[in-house]
Amino acid sequence: MIKRLAEEIKKKEAPIVVGLDPMLSYIPDDIVKKAFAERGESLEGAAAAVLEFNKGLLDAVSDLIPAVKPQIAMYEQFGIPGLQAFKETVDYAHEKGLVVIGDVKRGDIGSTSAAYATAHLGTVKVGGQELTPFGEDIATVNPYLGTDGIKPFLDVCNSHDKGIFVLVKTSNPSSGEFQDRIIDGRPLYEWVAEKVNEWGALSMDGDYSNVGAVVGATYPEMGAALRKIMPKAYILVPGYGAQGGRGKDLKGFFNEDGLGAIVNSSRGIIAAWKKDDYAGMSYQDAARKAVLDMKEDLKEAF
Amino acid sequence: MIKRLAEEIKKKEAPIVVGLDPMLSYIPDDIVKKAFAERGESLEGAAAAVLEFNKGLLDAVSDLIPAVKPQIAMYEQFGIPGLQAFKETVDYAHEKGLVVIGDVKRGDIGSTSAAYATAHLGTVKVGGQELTPFGEDIATVNPYLGTDGIKPFLDVCNSHDKGIFVLVKTSNPSSGEFQDRIIDGRPLYEWVAEKVNEWGALSMDGDYSNVGAVVGATYPEMGAALRKIMPKAYILVPGYGAQGGRGKDLKGFFNEDGLGAIVNSSRGIIAAWKKDDYAGMSYQDAARKAVLDMKEDLKEAF
Repeated sequence: MIKRLAEEIKKKEAPIVVGLDPMLSYIPDDIVKKAFAERGESLEGAAAAVLEFNKGLLDAVSDLIPAVKPQIAMYEQFGIPGLQAFKETVDYAHEKGLVVIGDVKRGDIGSTSAAYATAHLGTVKVGGQELTPFGEDIATVNPYLGTDGIKPFLDVCNSHDKGIFVLVKTSNPSSGEFQDRIIDGRPLYEWVAEKVNEWGALSMDGDYSNVGAVVGATYPEMGAALRKIMPKAYILVPGYGAQGGRGKDLKGFFNEDGLGAIVNSSRGIIAAWKKDDYAGMSYQDAARKAVLDMKEDLKEAF
Repeated sequence: MIKRLAEEIKKKEAPIVVGLDPMLSYIPDDIVKKAFAERGESLEGAAAAVLEFNKGLLDAVSDLIPAVKPQIAMYEQFGIPGLQAFKETVDYAHEKGLVVIGDVKRGDIGSTSAAYATAHLGTVKVGGQELTPFGEDIATVNPYLGTDGIKPFLDVCNSHDKGIFVLVKTSNPSSGEFQDRIIDGRPLYEWVAEKVNEWGALSMDGDYSNVGAVVGATYPEMGAALRKIMPKAYILVPGYGAQGGRGKDLKGFFNEDGLGAIVNSSRGIIAAWKKDDYAGMSYQDAARKAVLDMKEDLKEAF
């Protein structure tokens, strides 16, 4: 799957993933009102607003980008109807030809991790049928439980041509509490990175591995160091824009071929219409313009 | 919420939580066949079998135990219908008066972690309504992202009288890859335990904190050490039975008052009917007998 993602990035000339992390406050009033009128002030109503908003965003920006990253928490908070909207967002993004990165940060052990891998990347056997539960292409995974938690995902990566991004160094202010602690002279996140290499060797796909890494844009020096430690891992870079990351800071996350990283922006694109820079534009026009502006800004990374 | 859990444990004289982690292979053929006949060999059919099985288990054992712990991965693998069965299992367990621990191992940052806390423990505002997405009482949480990932859960613990169990030392063989690494003379899991104390102080509920810890039964010496490091944290102990833990090994997880820990068994109870020990019994009778046997075995812990 990582080979396909890299090809799409080259084709679109955009190492950009749009985070579909809708809050109700990001959605224009007319969409929310229509959804509430049709489905009530209910989980169903909220989910309908989210789905309508997402479809509008996908219509506006799909031709510019290789991938989207729906953050499942934002859907899970609306219960079953919210997760139905997540699934329909995945399906609609696929109709638009996009790679879908499920930002699910799952991680457990043994048969439980296998069930998560099945849920998000695989197929489940029910009687004589093989069925697709959610059907993302790539999922984010938490490494705290070690190899037992990752191995079942690798199996599905290999059997179904899928990928994972393992949390290595997250973008948040307190990520250092555990991730930066020094073990035998190196921070924990570097030890996780070494494991990403080890796991990644078990699922190569072209020049890169189906096992990538999440490294926050907010830590550019660590990003540059991790880029060298994990030469075969694609790096998913959250924290651009709203969290403070800027294109010129991101050079170190990329390899010399201009590949090896994909930068996420969520709020900066999907809620662009609420910013002064895009005043007066529709949410769709604002999102499109924000993607183009981000593309321009990222050119400084090369 | 931890106060209520401790009271239920005392009342039932059973520091036991039954893990509702149904695999289709654990469910008797007649239930599966009936579900497939009614709903097809589909995600809906699988989910119907799971729900019917869970209800039968809850009918059989609810009077003996204080809590159940559905593992959401096992439901998520059946997509939306599976998650609907999860929600209905939570509701049915509540009807039976049980505390419900959602084994969801969620963890993210800022507004995303807040959305997970809302999804599993809180209520979500939609227009003028406050709605309950999944409505568990306690959730398991992954600490890798640090305080930013935990704080939103603490807010919901305090506003909605809920609890969390933070992964400290997990029961799996490879848990040591990161968790046991030595930082300033102490393993990482002890540093996580120190944070559990710090977070726990922000949500006390009687003698214990709403912030508990997950420590695997498979590591009894570490359990005893962690018991002392986190005197106010309830410990959720997975890995009993099928994974190898035994009652006599678990003494160190409890405080001298016989409280402070709750031991989970999943397969050993819900799939007891498949074991030679319970041959010829219905799955419900076998589960009930397995709970009584576990209760007896755990007496050795005191």
